[in-house]
Amino acid sequence: MPRFALLVEYDGAPFAGWQRQSGLPSVQEAIETALARLEPGAHTIAAAGRTDTGVHGSGQVAHADLARDWEPFRLAEALNAHLRPHPVAIRAAMRVEDTFHARFSATERRYLFRILNRRAPAVLSLGRVWHVKAPLDVAAMQAGARHLVGHHDFTTFRSTLCQAKSPVKTLDEITISSADEEIRFALRARSFLHNQVRSIVGSLVRVGHGGWQPEDIARARDARDRAACGPVAPPQGLCLTKVVYPDDPFAEFR
Amino acid sequence: MPRFALLVEYDGAPFAGWQRQSGLPSVQEAIETALARLEPGAHTIAAAGRTDTGVHGSGQVAHADLARDWEPFRLAEALNAHLRPHPVAIRAAMRVEDTFHARFSATERRYLFRILNRRAPAVLSLGRVWHVKAPLDVAAMQAGARHLVGHHDFTTFRSTLCQAKSPVKTLDEITISSADEEIRFALRARSFLHNQVRSIVGSLVRVGHGGWQPEDIARARDARDRAACGPVAPPQGLCLTKVVYPDDPFAEFR
Repeated sequence: MPRFALLVEYDGAPFAGWQRQSGLPSVQEAIETALARLEPGAHTIAAAGRTDTGVHGSGQVAHADLARDWEPFRLAEALNAHLRPHPVAIRAAMRVEDTFHARFSATERRYLFRILNRRAPAVLSLGRVWHVKAPLDVAAMQAGARHLVGHHDFTTFRSTLCQAKSPVKTLDEITISSADEEIRFALRARSFLHNQVRSIVGSLVRVGHGGWQPEDIARARDARDRAACGPVAPPQGLCLTKVVYPDDPFAEFR
Repeated sequence: MPRFALLVEYDGAPFAGWQRQSGLPSVQEAIETALARLEPGAHTIAAAGRTDTGVHGSGQVAHADLARDWEPFRLAEALNAHLRPHPVAIRAAMRVEDTFHARFSATERRYLFRILNRRAPAVLSLGRVWHVKAPLDVAAMQAGARHLVGHHDFTTFRSTLCQAKSPVKTLDEITISSADEEIRFALRARSFLHNQVRSIVGSLVRVGHGGWQPEDIARARDARDRAACGPVAPPQGLCLTKVVYPDDPFAEFR
């Protein structure tokens, strides 16, 4: 069966996350249902990042095995037609080798977390940001973030539900930038633990508020204890923006 | 009566434009109604740009005369509380001189028009962009735009309903940039005619499609005839991003 990679954008709001769950709407189910309209029967697709309830994707990658050797452009068009009215779009489809696996072939994931840092409520960015009213000290958050970049045991910053075998990961980058009333956290790693980005952002916001000093991030990290984590940031500020592959099927789309 | 300037953000979708109209929802009415909750009676506010039905604002400026000498921070907070659930936010309020007029004191307006240029439907930017499926030639649109910068008779590019005394205006800037799948048109002028930005963008998109050559923009301009205009771009891609004043009450917010 020919294998296809799909570059997927979605609004996480109406979904209980990427992963199919019985009785709950998921992005995976929406796409698998659209695939079944093209080729009847059960479909199971795999994705690079199994984003949580309410988390968005702009550069998620999934793969599907189909019976027909679809022309990739037609496949994307047909899927988009059948995905309506779900807020899910196939930005592109590509024919890939059978050895390509959306999850296991990926060598890097990139996430963006957006905070709207002002008193007034979110309007144009509503549903895409975490609205934090009290002013945040960006320099302090940047100083705190330096304690998390590199190879660490991230037990403090992962959900107790996390199923990864090891809590040890290498975080390649946290860049915190601020423009107008928005603060953006860009994170990059080979892979992330469950709730890792939101746990890190929530803890850094505690530093931004002044409740924690930047060094408290190192202390929280060294505690290797979930209880030492700051509050987990809400999902609507988070977006999976890019997945990197050695032989990137969507190189032209990034 | 003390005068206050308001820096306003709004989602244009549910409104029949900025301006109060009998029987139709407007941004002006939403804010005037919130003001009446603070100080009973009729309020009339003036704005820098009377945006059309469906057009957004992120940096609109209005002014209001109130009876009480409000602490500006409290005024913004109270208005935001009373504006709920309208998608309208007072980003800031400032006490200004009685000579300040949101419309007549303004020396520059800036608009941003966003196009999502891809086959797949808009998801995360839905309602904030004009979705154009066919690929647009950005360089050709940039070449066409050069014919509109400067002092011109813009009769071709204004609505037949436009009430401005003269169609002659100076357009200071049109910058067209492209990143990922989005094309952004940034326009800057002392003032704009009714539908001018959307008429210009719609005509440039005709160039981007290849139906017009860049020089056809000069021909359309010189025709001084509304019938020579391209199709008017839809409102949801347009946003009033900034209003400039010689003595800017919101200098720190930009």
